[in-house]
Amino acid sequence: MRQTLGVRKIHVIGIGAGDPDQLTLQAVKSLRSTDVFFILDKGEVKSDLVRLRRDILDTHIPDRAYRLVEARDPDRDRSAGGTAYSPAVGDWRSARAAIYERLIAEELGEDESGAFLVWGDPALYDSTIGILEEILERGSVAFTYDVVPGVSSVSALVARHRTGLNRVARPVQITTGRRLAEGFPDGVDDVVVMLDAHQTFRQYADQDIDIYWGAYIGTPDEILASGPLAETAPRIERLRAEARERKGWIMDTYLLRRNPRD
Amino acid sequence: MRQTLGVRKIHVIGIGAGDPDQLTLQAVKSLRSTDVFFILDKGEVKSDLVRLRRDILDTHIPDRAYRLVEARDPDRDRSAGGTAYSPAVGDWRSARAAIYERLIAEELGEDESGAFLVWGDPALYDSTIGILEEILERGSVAFTYDVVPGVSSVSALVARHRTGLNRVARPVQITTGRRLAEGFPDGVDDVVVMLDAHQTFRQYADQDIDIYWGAYIGTPDEILASGPLAETAPRIERLRAEARERKGWIMDTYLLRRNPRD
Repeated sequence: MRQTLGVRKIHVIGIGAGDPDQLTLQAVKSLRSTDVFFILDKGEVKSDLVRLRRDILDTHIPDRAYRLVEARDPDRDRSAGGTAYSPAVGDWRSARAAIYERLIAEELGEDESGAFLVWGDPALYDSTIGILEEILERGSVAFTYDVVPGVSSVSALVARHRTGLNRVARPVQITTGRRLAEGFPDGVDDVVVMLDAHQTFRQYADQDIDIYWGAYIGTPDEILASGPLAETAPRIERLRAEARERKGWIMDTYLLRRNPRD
Repeated sequence: MRQTLGVRKIHVIGIGAGDPDQLTLQAVKSLRSTDVFFILDKGEVKSDLVRLRRDILDTHIPDRAYRLVEARDPDRDRSAGGTAYSPAVGDWRSARAAIYERLIAEELGEDESGAFLVWGDPALYDSTIGILEEILERGSVAFTYDVVPGVSSVSALVARHRTGLNRVARPVQITTGRRLAEGFPDGVDDVVVMLDAHQTFRQYADQDIDIYWGAYIGTPDEILASGPLAETAPRIERLRAEARERKGWIMDTYLLRRNPRD
């Protein structure tokens, strides 16, 4: 990012999937060059995640004076289960853009730099980049921004399972639980599913598919399970229900690998 | 990885897409706990990449005594242009497995740990994990291994372009140039293409598609280009030819984003 005097700077920093050691050196450098961190709290259920972010700051900038600005994320209608991207998603994004715009305009001096810390990789199912673009289009506050890529939960998942995302010379698709509910994607046999609150994998338990599942990847609460879907699905259901009960929230991801038919 | 006395340990370490700062803290720790690094040279054209790996070791373990074992990668038939995954791929993989097996058995003491450094993320279009599994199946040398996930060239590409991999609630597919030549994948409008020696994107220049292209991402030689495919494709062809001529090799990746038809 070109340094321009008098223009606010924003870093969108991918901080990895949950293991503080999954930060890159580039992310650490960006943290250390940040004046103001914006942390949006999604409410009590995810306060563990807010704490993890603060731990990362404590670890990497112990002596540095930075400002921490916390705000409440707009509520998104999750009644359909967290994967409900409905027309309401546009409203939610605009509500979030209004909050971010105010934070950048009011909390960040013109020569300062601010940062948003994003779990995993800012490129995958995260709204921060889109929201910053929306604010720039509105034109009421000027800033430049850069994106620091991170280890995605997808990469972390398969690393823990010691398998690849794709098989030799074949494609892999990354999709959502809601999309998977509409059918197994065409033309691919390796499918990573994110944002699935409904354990949609159960829908395919009669097929010759292996599942590689993980929750809270990289954290002390990490749970992994893998194997043929028919026998592994009930175990995942049980593990998932227990964990969700215990912690109050869950973040999980999985890879479905369909075996050749012949 | 459980520490077991008398069993060799292997780290498969993702080292990011080319920027040494894209190493994770976990990767640095794994580097520092490694006794022997195995570096396979693909021949002169990629000697830049071997040098980059050695620079990473010099930076992060300046004082430490480690051993570096270099071997020549088996030649793969690239006459069809690098994306030619043909039946020969199995032979190539077995030839590579034989080399790795010998390296592990002969160059690594029973209580030592060795490492393979993998560009990007070991989960994407890399054969190391599969080869280690093949060696374990052969059963002639015992070892345990873990995988350290890395920032993939895919994540690095879109971070530099400051865009996401997927659009809101939509899937993304990662595929090869050869697959793309067979047709635009079904059911997705966001497609990342790797291992494309033939600039297959040209085949779709008559469609309403944006391209986000990059070569040597994260290195001082980095080149980026983006825009509507019809007008950007000729520019990429030119940039790519010039760079390939100048450096003798090229590694590039791109995202194709098809716009809605209505």
